[in-house]
Amino acid sequence: MTAPTAPYLSAVSRRAQEIAPFHVMELMARAAALEATGHDIVHMEVGEPDFPTPAPVVEAARDFLASGHVHYTSALGLPRLREAIAGFYQEHYGIALPASRVVVTAGGSGALLLALGALVNPGDEWLVTDPGYPCNRHFIRTFEGQAKAIVVGPENRFQPTPEQVASHWTAHTRGALFGSPSNPTGTVLRGHELRGLTEAVESRGGTLILDEIYHGLTYGGCDESVLTYSQQACVVQSFSKYFNMTGWRLGWLIVPEAFIRPVEKLAQNLFIAPSTPAQHAALAAFLPETRAILEARRTEFRQRRDFLLGELLRLGFTIPAQPEGAFYIYADISAFSGDSFAFASRLLDEAGIAATPGLDFGNADPARYMRFAYTTNLERLAEGIARLEKMLGR
Amino acid sequence: MTAPTAPYLSAVSRRAQEIAPFHVMELMARAAALEATGHDIVHMEVGEPDFPTPAPVVEAARDFLASGHVHYTSALGLPRLREAIAGFYQEHYGIALPASRVVVTAGGSGALLLALGALVNPGDEWLVTDPGYPCNRHFIRTFEGQAKAIVVGPENRFQPTPEQVASHWTAHTRGALFGSPSNPTGTVLRGHELRGLTEAVESRGGTLILDEIYHGLTYGGCDESVLTYSQQACVVQSFSKYFNMTGWRLGWLIVPEAFIRPVEKLAQNLFIAPSTPAQHAALAAFLPETRAILEARRTEFRQRRDFLLGELLRLGFTIPAQPEGAFYIYADISAFSGDSFAFASRLLDEAGIAATPGLDFGNADPARYMRFAYTTNLERLAEGIARLEKMLGR
Repeated sequence: MTAPTAPYLSAVSRRAQEIAPFHVMELMARAAALEATGHDIVHMEVGEPDFPTPAPVVEAARDFLASGHVHYTSALGLPRLREAIAGFYQEHYGIALPASRVVVTAGGSGALLLALGALVNPGDEWLVTDPGYPCNRHFIRTFEGQAKAIVVGPENRFQPTPEQVASHWTAHTRGALFGSPSNPTGTVLRGHELRGLTEAVESRGGTLILDEIYHGLTYGGCDESVLTYSQQACVVQSFSKYFNMTGWRLGWLIVPEAFIRPVEKLAQNLFIAPSTPAQHAALAAFLPETRAILEARRTEFRQRRDFLLGELLRLGFTIPAQPEGAFYIYADISAFSGDSFAFASRLLDEAGIAATPGLDFGNADPARYMRFAYTTNLERLAEGIARLEKMLGR
Repeated sequence: MTAPTAPYLSAVSRRAQEIAPFHVMELMARAAALEATGHDIVHMEVGEPDFPTPAPVVEAARDFLASGHVHYTSALGLPRLREAIAGFYQEHYGIALPASRVVVTAGGSGALLLALGALVNPGDEWLVTDPGYPCNRHFIRTFEGQAKAIVVGPENRFQPTPEQVASHWTAHTRGALFGSPSNPTGTVLRGHELRGLTEAVESRGGTLILDEIYHGLTYGGCDESVLTYSQQACVVQSFSKYFNMTGWRLGWLIVPEAFIRPVEKLAQNLFIAPSTPAQHAALAAFLPETRAILEARRTEFRQRRDFLLGELLRLGFTIPAQPEGAFYIYADISAFSGDSFAFASRLLDEAGIAATPGLDFGNADPARYMRFAYTTNLERLAEGIARLEKMLGR
């Protein structure tokens, strides 16, 4: 019998070879190993809310499941849920959106897969930000496109400008994929910025995809959707973050009229349909009693942000752009280290704190930054800060 | 304001333009319209079991959900579920399979997406069968590969042979994706055939992917997995069919050792993780009480197959290969029509029967065949046969 490994490594597609893993996974594995030997770890690396799914949503799922009739839905999702999502745009943003343009997906990930699958041809260039959500460039790579990074920094709150879109645009550019609130920086695009980016992309014949999966989780700032400024943009959204439904794997995609049919064909073939129990659960996500729970949690997220932001500044971190949304603070660590990966390692080993080094979000200046997630309660955040203070000898 | 449609149709990727819709959807829409106006339709087009999810599986999900803690799992799935699936291979097939090679996925669709994403480079050729599961060629197309059809017919029970693999193999061929039990024909590959196909593909340096999503649903024939004959093949499996869990969107992929890491990276980036409630539900799928329910249902599927097969033969259809598994009968309609699409239309309008024309399964000889699914109970099947008999004037 021949060794199975050798011939098969070469069979792995270039795509799969080139796609980078999450570097934080290595740290998380070490964190888990430390926990297994009795160490206490403060988790500030996790990109999901610590809250349980709101009770009305859970109850809706349990009620639906009682019958056991858990069959496929149509590929675009339950009509009632598509209408509920469209209604949410009317109610929350004042945007009249036909339910036909709402595609229910397997999480924000499924929405990105369908949008980029329906838009990216091999060799096409798509603009993304550095730093940004790391999977974005891998989705583009998956469909043989090329992600072209716009390096964004503190000078514009880590968000791209129309001028940058113009200067990065080539004959091969077909669109842009940006995010607001941003992961990893938590910064939010204002209305005039959304309008400017829309015009910059669409005047060049391109498509703008806006990742709005952290919408709802903003703290006093703007919470405008790109749909206010364009009916031709695509919006990626999710029940994971604001709605606290990560594990259900449910999200949605808003597409222009002309994309509905191509996206439906892709969805039929690649997914068949999104999860039926998750869709029935999500029907309860827009109920007033659920929204009340979510708004109370948003208040708590804001308190955590305020606490963590103040404490990191007090300890000597630089926070170059005010984090206004999501549940992340992107901190400049140069006062302590020139290597965020080594610093993250030291944080874990010496202080029992897990946090994500910049390396997972881009290549421009990753050694300078770390992402701290406030997806754990105030008491634990305070414990983390106390340990950090001790480690830094402040 | 400019019309949104014109510029955006050109933005749709070639991939999305080329992927074909399911033709049966058009018929299903007409069937739904007929039902809405009070007509009774016998559904023999549906590719999912009519049974509810087994009660122990539903109860496991409801118990899990009670806490509301529905967070992400690891990208490859819950370790306990991966072990349960590996245990199923030991128990059911006598195959020792390390749980590390089990990847839990978003349905069989997610398994196909990950397997082909990890294997297909642009321009690569992959062998598939015609007729076969229509999405197979679209998954390959999605990753810019080319599906090359092996036309299979009654002479070999609609299954490919090693000789056909040899004659279709070119310098660009990288593998083959076959299915057993087959959709749409229900025919099953025997052990020596699995061995022959494995050798034909692997001796040429290719990878064999076996779609085994209808495994468990066989009626007296062989139920061997390709894993008995190769540790280098990939297996696509699902909780949808035998386990009656379609709407949960859960399946699995077995990969050789060397593919685990590339598939994990793809899964992290494209899916994050499979549905958490579905995974907890599936932990109960292998319980003895669940298996007892499923085996009783298998007996019922067999009774339906026996009934429908006998009746279709009696009415003058030709069934050129004995359907031994899944829940499909692929019937030659040439005694009645030379155009299965027109015949399907007539069946719907004149007899109130929905069934799937061959066109959805390939291009070789689709006008000659229709797929009848026995995913409705014996009483309804009998009603359908009575109507069919009347329509045919027999």
